[in-house]
Amino acid sequence: MVALASLPRNETGIATAIDILAQRLGPRLQTGEAIRTQHANSATWLPAQAADAVAYLQTADEAADLIRICADHRVPVIPFGTGTSLEGHINAPAGGICADLSGMDQVLEINAQDGDCRVQPGVTRTRLNEELRATGLFFPIDPGADASLGGMASTRASGTNAVRYGTMRDAVLALQVVLPDGRLVRTGTRARKSSAGYDLTRLMVGAEGTLGLITELTLRLHGIPEAIRAAACTFPDVGAAVETCIAVIQSGIPIARIELLDALQVRACNLHSGLDLPEAPLLLLEFHGSPAGVAEQVETVAALVREAGGSGFRWEERAEDRTRLWQARHDAYWAACALRPGAKGLSTDVCVPISNLGPAIEAAQRKAREMNLLAPALGHVGDGNFHVLLLVDPEDAAERAGADAYIEWLAELAWSLDGTCTGEHGIGQGKRALLRREAGEAVDVMAAIKAALDPLGIMNPGKIV
Amino acid sequence: MVALASLPRNETGIATAIDILAQRLGPRLQTGEAIRTQHANSATWLPAQAADAVAYLQTADEAADLIRICADHRVPVIPFGTGTSLEGHINAPAGGICADLSGMDQVLEINAQDGDCRVQPGVTRTRLNEELRATGLFFPIDPGADASLGGMASTRASGTNAVRYGTMRDAVLALQVVLPDGRLVRTGTRARKSSAGYDLTRLMVGAEGTLGLITELTLRLHGIPEAIRAAACTFPDVGAAVETCIAVIQSGIPIARIELLDALQVRACNLHSGLDLPEAPLLLLEFHGSPAGVAEQVETVAALVREAGGSGFRWEERAEDRTRLWQARHDAYWAACALRPGAKGLSTDVCVPISNLGPAIEAAQRKAREMNLLAPALGHVGDGNFHVLLLVDPEDAAERAGADAYIEWLAELAWSLDGTCTGEHGIGQGKRALLRREAGEAVDVMAAIKAALDPLGIMNPGKIV
Repeated sequence: MVALASLPRNETGIATAIDILAQRLGPRLQTGEAIRTQHANSATWLPAQAADAVAYLQTADEAADLIRICADHRVPVIPFGTGTSLEGHINAPAGGICADLSGMDQVLEINAQDGDCRVQPGVTRTRLNEELRATGLFFPIDPGADASLGGMASTRASGTNAVRYGTMRDAVLALQVVLPDGRLVRTGTRARKSSAGYDLTRLMVGAEGTLGLITELTLRLHGIPEAIRAAACTFPDVGAAVETCIAVIQSGIPIARIELLDALQVRACNLHSGLDLPEAPLLLLEFHGSPAGVAEQVETVAALVREAGGSGFRWEERAEDRTRLWQARHDAYWAACALRPGAKGLSTDVCVPISNLGPAIEAAQRKAREMNLLAPALGHVGDGNFHVLLLVDPEDAAERAGADAYIEWLAELAWSLDGTCTGEHGIGQGKRALLRREAGEAVDVMAAIKAALDPLGIMNPGKIV
Repeated sequence: MVALASLPRNETGIATAIDILAQRLGPRLQTGEAIRTQHANSATWLPAQAADAVAYLQTADEAADLIRICADHRVPVIPFGTGTSLEGHINAPAGGICADLSGMDQVLEINAQDGDCRVQPGVTRTRLNEELRATGLFFPIDPGADASLGGMASTRASGTNAVRYGTMRDAVLALQVVLPDGRLVRTGTRARKSSAGYDLTRLMVGAEGTLGLITELTLRLHGIPEAIRAAACTFPDVGAAVETCIAVIQSGIPIARIELLDALQVRACNLHSGLDLPEAPLLLLEFHGSPAGVAEQVETVAALVREAGGSGFRWEERAEDRTRLWQARHDAYWAACALRPGAKGLSTDVCVPISNLGPAIEAAQRKAREMNLLAPALGHVGDGNFHVLLLVDPEDAAERAGADAYIEWLAELAWSLDGTCTGEHGIGQGKRALLRREAGEAVDVMAAIKAALDPLGIMNPGKIV
């Protein structure tokens, strides 16, 4: 489906920029192959395309300098956080400089009274939550990987908690961004809401580094709930599990997490994480609130589970049991990969309105069986977002072609059900053709914005548009 | 502060476009002065600047046609919903065609299972809620005026429920928009979340019709809560009321509304709406949830009110009492104006982090007293957003100058407290100079986007950038 053609390289510009940057950054500019490869797309099915150098940045001014130098010499800049994105966002198809922001890892300010904080882009979500521990606040967005917050903003990440707390779209109050011409701007204030002109914050969130480089984030935080309970329950089929999920959402229960694992994925998690869950479709649930509120939520949901024929409503009230359950969920990708040693997991990412979720998952499973793909499925079902993990041999061209055909078929299924080809992974290199088919002429609007803000095309070229 | 200079007019183009449109629309193109004036800025302190004709549109294709004709002849298009915006958004400083969308008032689709709906832009929020009644769902955004949903999206409106349900930024899932070149695009799907490229939905929300004309909205709905209770309580001073608000928000109570009225505003409401509230700072509260959840919220908040020295925690459990209380809040603008017959109310609109709200409101009241301005204050305090209503004689140049100076002073105060000059009213014509001061070079980014999408500058010229 995707041909990773290289883009034309500006050899002279790249060499000049590397010379200048080496003088400024000293050993913080690295050109060795191991480091460059490590900073290219490695965690996914797309082949790596390494940058020509990696710049380890420490300040926003340094980032602005780097971009000015690269603009002067027409050299691509590829922002890098932790390298956990899934659609080739950190590849360098035209070469250029990888801007490694992992060293910009300061939590600059925590405003506990207002429930917000200001952080540098290299802070990871777990680091932030460690820093917040004493305040009674937490940062809820949890995509699984311990990604950097700058990277999470750039891909508009979400994950298991989005059904209650929203996505990075909702979590980011304001950004400081280096524009493609090297100017440093702020896109908002700490105020909770604003009507002050175009929503540049939301434009930069999800722009995958193609419109600028995020050097600071102002994030919204939430109070750690007084009471947290988690549960696991098993269903006779995926349809019953999804019906329960729809009923939970429709009854207005403010559930914090509601995750589906299909029978194959449960088997994978049992094997990988030493669990003994029944090998049938499973919902993992988490409830946040006051003790009485959580008790009420639990009672209502337990009744809905029973009505749908679900069973084994197991409670994990102790923090360590909850952690074990959610760790297994987070390790689902690796657990799935272990089902077929040597295989790579290609993660699909469609999202549909929840009333269409049951038919969507069932059709996706049926199609995978028809195509002889080993493909466990799991999903953030409260949002209608699910992932089918295609376990394929990356060296086998026929398998790769089959997987590509499946990914395209699944996107078409999602569109036919009023959905999108990507709920949270982004477009990157991998889904550009699908974006055009999904958004049509709206992609021209995106391209016009890109051309207006980055006329030289230096910011993360070859992604989105 | 604001000089409403007219912009250059393209007389020939306007005359030609009117001729063509008159042939297409027949009596649905009106050029009479009364109708044109009625469609210019009338509800606010800015002088009216009427368009040259008003086109009553009925379909998206008709809207696309109109924009193509206006693009061909370089004629401004000013989108119009109900005319309730406050910063001159519907003025026509360069003349042109007012696109009246009030006739596009169909609710096209309600997806009760998914909690979303698709509407035309002329549907008002109360009309939508009437249509939704049988479904158990409601649309929560409530800016007071019965505005059209297209207009509410365009100004990124919010209001009393935003503390719980968010603003139009959160409520809009997707849009259909006519671009400034007449192309019709969709900015998203019904999926709850998406990472499919730049967030054009959020770019159009709050763009005040300067980047395109909204012809359809897909909106997120919420379940009508099982239990609703409202309360009114009085505080010895504004500081105590705000402290209570901060405590409520920090304790994580999912309060649906928390509104502050200062003593002068309470007096105005008593006079106007025949109430007998004590003339002291007042919080109006509303709780949504399950019966047990609401009871728990109420108990916690009552304790916080008592701790802060508040009193008279009056309950309005009957729907008619609640409606009366909120009607008084909605009529607050008219009540305030009635304090000084003949005066116009200039509404300020700053928003600050809530920890800065107490000092902000107190300073704002003090400054108004120093300047001898009659100026009741009220606010969506859960969001840190408040309005000081300046009651001035619009014919008195000195008073107007004083009000302008106050508005500028208040914006500076908000910036010094990490806030914004507009929480929900938008920029329009009235706050363009303030936007430049608030956002700095980020305004250049907005201007670049505007130039890229609307190179002819026909969409609602003279607003935002």
